[in-house]
Amino acid sequence: MQATMMNVPLSINHFLDRAGTIFKHNTIVSRLPDKSLRSHTYGQWHQRTLQLASALQRAGLQQGDRVATLCWNHHVHLEAYFGIPAAGGVMHTLNLRLSPEEIGWIAADCQDRFLIIDDVLLPLYRQMAHLHAFEKVLVFPFSGAAVPDDLIDYEAFIASGDAAGFTVAPHGENDPIAICYTSGTTGRPKGVAYSHRSTVLHTLVGCLGDHWGLRGNDVVMPVTPMFHANSWGMPYGAVMMGAKLVFPGPHLHPDDLLDLMQLEPPTLSLGVPTIWMSLIQTFDRAQVETPGRWKLPAGMRSLVGGAAVPEALIRAFDQHGIWIMQGWGMTETSPIATVSYPRAELKDATQDERYRRAAMAGVVAPLVELRLKTDEGAIAPWDGQTMGEIQVRGPFITGSYHEVPVTEDKFTPDGWLRTGDVATMDELGFLRITDRTKDLIKSGGEWISSVDVENALMSHPAVAEAAVIAIPDEKWSERPLACVAFKPGQHAAPAALNALLLERGFAKWQLPERYEVIPAVPRTSTGKFWKLKLREMFPR
Amino acid sequence: MQATMMNVPLSINHFLDRAGTIFKHNTIVSRLPDKSLRSHTYGQWHQRTLQLASALQRAGLQQGDRVATLCWNHHVHLEAYFGIPAAGGVMHTLNLRLSPEEIGWIAADCQDRFLIIDDVLLPLYRQMAHLHAFEKVLVFPFSGAAVPDDLIDYEAFIASGDAAGFTVAPHGENDPIAICYTSGTTGRPKGVAYSHRSTVLHTLVGCLGDHWGLRGNDVVMPVTPMFHANSWGMPYGAVMMGAKLVFPGPHLHPDDLLDLMQLEPPTLSLGVPTIWMSLIQTFDRAQVETPGRWKLPAGMRSLVGGAAVPEALIRAFDQHGIWIMQGWGMTETSPIATVSYPRAELKDATQDERYRRAAMAGVVAPLVELRLKTDEGAIAPWDGQTMGEIQVRGPFITGSYHEVPVTEDKFTPDGWLRTGDVATMDELGFLRITDRTKDLIKSGGEWISSVDVENALMSHPAVAEAAVIAIPDEKWSERPLACVAFKPGQHAAPAALNALLLERGFAKWQLPERYEVIPAVPRTSTGKFWKLKLREMFPR
Repeated sequence: MQATMMNVPLSINHFLDRAGTIFKHNTIVSRLPDKSLRSHTYGQWHQRTLQLASALQRAGLQQGDRVATLCWNHHVHLEAYFGIPAAGGVMHTLNLRLSPEEIGWIAADCQDRFLIIDDVLLPLYRQMAHLHAFEKVLVFPFSGAAVPDDLIDYEAFIASGDAAGFTVAPHGENDPIAICYTSGTTGRPKGVAYSHRSTVLHTLVGCLGDHWGLRGNDVVMPVTPMFHANSWGMPYGAVMMGAKLVFPGPHLHPDDLLDLMQLEPPTLSLGVPTIWMSLIQTFDRAQVETPGRWKLPAGMRSLVGGAAVPEALIRAFDQHGIWIMQGWGMTETSPIATVSYPRAELKDATQDERYRRAAMAGVVAPLVELRLKTDEGAIAPWDGQTMGEIQVRGPFITGSYHEVPVTEDKFTPDGWLRTGDVATMDELGFLRITDRTKDLIKSGGEWISSVDVENALMSHPAVAEAAVIAIPDEKWSERPLACVAFKPGQHAAPAALNALLLERGFAKWQLPERYEVIPAVPRTSTGKFWKLKLREMFPR
Repeated sequence: MQATMMNVPLSINHFLDRAGTIFKHNTIVSRLPDKSLRSHTYGQWHQRTLQLASALQRAGLQQGDRVATLCWNHHVHLEAYFGIPAAGGVMHTLNLRLSPEEIGWIAADCQDRFLIIDDVLLPLYRQMAHLHAFEKVLVFPFSGAAVPDDLIDYEAFIASGDAAGFTVAPHGENDPIAICYTSGTTGRPKGVAYSHRSTVLHTLVGCLGDHWGLRGNDVVMPVTPMFHANSWGMPYGAVMMGAKLVFPGPHLHPDDLLDLMQLEPPTLSLGVPTIWMSLIQTFDRAQVETPGRWKLPAGMRSLVGGAAVPEALIRAFDQHGIWIMQGWGMTETSPIATVSYPRAELKDATQDERYRRAAMAGVVAPLVELRLKTDEGAIAPWDGQTMGEIQVRGPFITGSYHEVPVTEDKFTPDGWLRTGDVATMDELGFLRITDRTKDLIKSGGEWISSVDVENALMSHPAVAEAAVIAIPDEKWSERPLACVAFKPGQHAAPAALNALLLERGFAKWQLPERYEVIPAVPRTSTGKFWKLKLREMFPR
């Protein structure tokens, strides 16, 4: 027998229609370069998005053509998220934190036809323009300044579109809508292309109660850049549920974020750990120096991912009534693969146990299958101890890279993605990331998790940041080196740090061989600890 | 270009695996015929479900074969929900409230091969057995009594299955997993067959924060029968999120439900309005007669659907800290099509306005498209006044009926389902059901909504229930007749009821032509007001 269900393809155009009709009175706020706020209703945004889509088609955009964005987080970027796919195109978010050479290489590799760019980023464009010739460069006058004559004014461009006469490009649910390039800490950046289907499914899974728990009356502040794994998919979720969006624009300094939180208190925010570490340090300092300057939005859920979240950070925010929810994923996984959330089975757990769990990567999301493969090729048992490489599979996990042959170092013969992250899993399914495969330290035949040592060091009150790398050792093969950045005016001696580690249950042989004091841990373009740089700084 | 996402079919087998591993320690509670409670862990349930699937395959079940269930709500029914599809079969939930003749006709129409039945329902089976010959009848010894020799003991049957050696049947995502027959208030019952795909999508949409808001630490009490549109899909959601389930078994009397709520306080419950009306009446009476006997589970969300929810009921429960969430849908829509929830745009609304909105059918769910078609074939504007037939379209909406030709009275030429319900929509997208097309009363060329009149009458303190039907009228073509059931020992004169209606804004010509006092409104097998019966009782 056959099922009788309608054959209706999944489509993010449906979310666009929904927001433009049902949620037309709800609001999208963007912070401009001069720090003022600009509001649009979803109704206005919908109208502008359809105008963009119409104008792109009139400009000759064909099915599957790439339109790049080089933008901060704001309403026009959200127009691109939906307008480009509505026209049949593929949005390619360029990472403005990369070097001009990298950006140019990526745009050329992706064969981007058009570019939508913030006027404040034109200096970056001028540095990379010789590497790839966009047919049209549409400049969003974000700062309000006049657009240079050799480029196209985005506002004039969309004004030429006909929203009323526009119909969305026909498509199948597996057609691409967006492409992100991986940050490329190993090898050349590679493109991951999302489809209508994968995006709709990922959005539904992300919005679940135990994940974002997104509701229409939420106020969402995406600090995570919209070019960083599509701001973790949150823009799609907010549009589907009609939640209010508050975009910080280019102002990601802790002072600026705290100011914005006073003006538009969020109920849900998202960002990498380093952002929240700086924010809480700034806030704590202000409590002493300028008490009452800021209030933190108590009750806010804060999604933190992109790197391991130290337990100390979770405790610090919880004191202010803000619960940090950690997730783990990557560009290749759309990105939600696991989320740490309070489980029914732990309802009688102590507060310490809750914090310990919250500092884990969490539990695999619905629609995602996850397994840990040991060095010996076995599936690691769920014992909380056996380490294995995380491998994942599912309808919003990439099965290849854009125009790159599938290789066994990235995908298993049975079709799972090899993530390169190493973890343990306990009997409740909680994943604990112990390392990147390439960051694990092999000392005397035993593995040391650099992440575990880092997190313990960062719980010391004097430590602002810590990163641990392997240095070669004749006797032990490798030994850990700890690079530590102290809080302003504070310090701790290696002996004190070692004492802390021993207290936390580390064995003597797991203690760092040496400590180096650094001003700050160098970061990648997406805000993660950049260990490659540290290994260059400290080759031995 | 192509998207790079993996091609992984959607499958409810994935939910089964998830619950059996990650959530293995969480609990499923079933109330037995003797009113005692029996607990299984999800781990035990998973094991038993795989045994069932293995045993079904060993018994010769082939891909697409139907296995019927005739069961109350309990763990074995949940085993059938997942075990039958895992074996490649299609679960067919028979409605135990239908007559033996109807059940037999439906089983024959669906060509059910096997039957899983509660022992306490065997008398019903004996009455319909001559109408359809099941190859195997598997009797769940729900009451603990011995299974008759001519039938198969379910427990012995699954004991013959090999969980460890079982692998799920290969399938595509559009393959069927379950079939429900419509209650057939018009014409013969017709089958709606759900697929892996439609079920996974419906589950994700149902679990969203503004709908069920389902979380792993919820305690869910499905009062809605598992044969009534799959208990609205909740069993799939609970398994996906690993929420605790509390099944009431055969004990749906208000006293029994209140007792069960003391033993296992739910955070989320679901049922038709008539159940909750009886429950609150019973509770209020007990408050006077036997104070302290019961406590209502404050904080519980209560999903109510299957018929319009009177505003008075919402207000009554809200006084006890229980928020009633109304939804609208039908077997054909999986069933969630709309849900009423607090919208951001209404954050400054009065409490009266909140109640008024909560008594509406609500806002269309993601992935569902909805339009109102007027008598003249136009799309009704979103003005809160223009009535039109609700038509819907989406990946979990049926596009046909099982082995029945598609006809234009059920599906539009452009592929939308004609629901037969009439509604208005306001500018926030809130749908208000005004009637079934066949229940609308046309008086003097103007429509009167029977539902509006009923709801107003039910807000009178003496009225337990009210149903309004059309009676023929020579002058006006049709006139409304109100059938009213009063609360024990109470009464109100027609003049008082008319005064109430006038006070609520009804015009004089909309007042009932006549009132009839009845002991209770007759109900369909799924607990809805059965107006066909009333029309038979009062032909004029």
